Amino acid sequence: MSKTIAINAGSSSLKWQLYQMPEESVIAKGIVERIGINDSIFTIKYGEGQKFEQVLDIKDHEVAVQMLLDQLIQLKIIASFDEITGVGHRVVAGGEYFKDSVLIDDDVLAKIEELSEFAPLHNPANAMGIKAFRHILPNVTSVAVFDTSFHATMPATNYLYSIPKEYYDKYSARKYGFHGTSHRYVSERAAELLGKPIEETKIITAHIGNGGSITAVEGGKSIDTSMGFTPLAGLTMGTRSGDIDASLLPYLMEKAGIKDINEMIDVLNKKSGVYGLTGISSDMRDIEQGADDGNEDAILALDIYCDRIRKYIAQYISVMNGVDAIVFTAGVGENADPVRHLVMEKMSWFGIEIDEEINKSTHGKEAELSTANSRVKVYVIPTDEEVMIARDVERLGKSKPPV
Amino acid sequence: MSKTIAINAGSSSLKWQLYQMPEESVIAKGIVERIGINDSIFTIKYGEGQKFEQVLDIKDHEVAVQMLLDQLIQLKIIASFDEITGVGHRVVAGGEYFKDSVLIDDDVLAKIEELSEFAPLHNPANAMGIKAFRHILPNVTSVAVFDTSFHATMPATNYLYSIPKEYYDKYSARKYGFHGTSHRYVSERAAELLGKPIEETKIITAHIGNGGSITAVEGGKSIDTSMGFTPLAGLTMGTRSGDIDASLLPYLMEKAGIKDINEMIDVLNKKSGVYGLTGISSDMRDIEQGADDGNEDAILALDIYCDRIRKYIAQYISVMNGVDAIVFTAGVGENADPVRHLVMEKMSWFGIEIDEEINKSTHGKEAELSTANSRVKVYVIPTDEEVMIARDVERLGKSKPPV
Repeated sequence: MSKTIAINAGSSSLKWQLYQMPEESVIAKGIVERIGINDSIFTIKYGEGQKFEQVLDIKDHEVAVQMLLDQLIQLKIIASFDEITGVGHRVVAGGEYFKDSVLIDDDVLAKIEELSEFAPLHNPANAMGIKAFRHILPNVTSVAVFDTSFHATMPATNYLYSIPKEYYDKYSARKYGFHGTSHRYVSERAAELLGKPIEETKIITAHIGNGGSITAVEGGKSIDTSMGFTPLAGLTMGTRSGDIDASLLPYLMEKAGIKDINEMIDVLNKKSGVYGLTGISSDMRDIEQGADDGNEDAILALDIYCDRIRKYIAQYISVMNGVDAIVFTAGVGENADPVRHLVMEKMSWFGIEIDEEINKSTHGKEAELSTANSRVKVYVIPTDEEVMIARDVERLGKSKPPV
Repeated sequence: MSKTIAINAGSSSLKWQLYQMPEESVIAKGIVERIGINDSIFTIKYGEGQKFEQVLDIKDHEVAVQMLLDQLIQLKIIASFDEITGVGHRVVAGGEYFKDSVLIDDDVLAKIEELSEFAPLHNPANAMGIKAFRHILPNVTSVAVFDTSFHATMPATNYLYSIPKEYYDKYSARKYGFHGTSHRYVSERAAELLGKPIEETKIITAHIGNGGSITAVEGGKSIDTSMGFTPLAGLTMGTRSGDIDASLLPYLMEKAGIKDINEMIDVLNKKSGVYGLTGISSDMRDIEQGADDGNEDAILALDIYCDRIRKYIAQYISVMNGVDAIVFTAGVGENADPVRHLVMEKMSWFGIEIDEEINKSTHGKEAELSTANSRVKVYVIPTDEEVMIARDVERLGKSKPPV
């Protein structure tokens, strides 16, 4: 009975999913919210639609992990902690250290904490989750799965910025990319759907959620991606600006009386994107609704949002000099048929065509949107970062030296 | 005998070209360099390869203009100032005021000076040139031709950044684009070569010099361009970074101990691009030479340079959902066959193909590079911003109310 937990720890939250491996079946999943605040919310879903929920104060991640493990026994989801043979942790920034998922030891943990300056909101939280599990389940295989590592195969042409080279040599200033686990999952699935060895495929994956990124996956390897040194760059997102002219920063700081550049970057991360363009919402469902209702800001924001996605898809076709499949995934990509429609309608010159009826009826499920005539397959593939984490725990657990 | 001077005034220079209109024949041209410094250099080329050069101190633009006009008479290029019926001035930033070239009056001049914050190196110098000519030739038709005005037709989808909308409403923070006069000239010429009314064409113009920008020209109108609020954005250039993740700014400032954001922007404008990547030169001829000699930084910089051009061409195909012609122009675009080769070699999936022999032998002259099989025409068209300025003087001069 080998069970693996996939963990995604935020600064005040802990999302998890418990797998029976190698079957990859989900036994239970849950989330602990408002950790360290008050009235924390502890939820587990298991069995046939059963749900356990409790509101109480949970002071830190360690208490959250202890409670989660105790409840697994309490609810008879597991009989003993020994059934859990692996824990996999999502870690956002792997910098240049981690080109693949890795078994966690003291050195790995120290490096994850060191990389906090590349992902100040995420890595410290990820590290808290790791520490809590290491403390409570010290002998269980523990694996870190990085959002960046799938992009470690990018060539220098694509990861370097055209800035003084010493900034890369001394400070590792380069494009890292994010959402790697999702891009990896959906590109592997797309290769299966194409019925070709992944080594022979060119796939563009559009992970479009509240954050969003597009990746060019050639032969199963990421060779370019739209996010950059941080997740700010690339597409127009829910609250993030994506690409802008860097010269806007000093200009806007002076005009708007913003003294600190970090405050300016905060505006670009949290008050921009479709939210900034409309003042309505960062949620694309609200933007679509606004556009339907004739709100001009919403119509424009929707058009900008789709334009930026299309531009990245088009440029990645040129990066690979071709494409076999384009994949939409994540919250917006899986559900927002108007977005997919607007992105694809201007790609007919490329020989790409989708069936509008299939598109309209595809929400949150796998589907082939492209017509029989389309030169390129277009898929919706629901992403599953958790199962990739569980798979990496399996893979690396087997290579682990005996304790 | 109607003669028009096209003027391009820099902070310490004045470039000019004298046309016989409407024949558009160049009667003389010249440059005054090191104005206001010392040992200013005054040069005129005229007649059949004749040249006049003098080194002397020229204290300001007004003195330079007076000397230039006097020398035109001295050298018998003109018999009297009355022969000069129009002066056209290149102005870099036209902001949201100027959507076309315009007859200069006090109000126009005040606005050009007001727009200096959008082009601090250029507009004040352009205004100095205008004032000098207005003073010395007060009754001559005087026209301002803006680098930005060709891009005034861009739709909001393409000129807006995904930042809080008030930044546009209050501070006019948007994409303006540059090199408009050049993009306009070569797109008009490309439509002639295509043998189609320009209204029915989709053309991508690549103005690649020490600075560089790509424009999508649909129906003769610019609908998107790679430079942004300032000329910093877009392509990798001689010394400019082009697009980067804005989050790099606070990170690099902290790491490199740069206190002032304007200093950081200065690095991105003056010490980046292929110069920053290689430390060799900002001149693509030196980078190509370095690459030929096996210098790895130069090989990489050349690859990055071409990759960014290709990415913009590809994305503008998607913006127009098609393209009839791609045009290379300006110093690098007209001369650097290796750059054109590297850009185009990965566009075969798009059905675009160039004749490598024709490409290799095309330097500084008009040519059709595409093969007969190519789905898209690819041209080299030498740019001519000066003749566009002279044409606009003609056009607007006719509409001028009698003095």
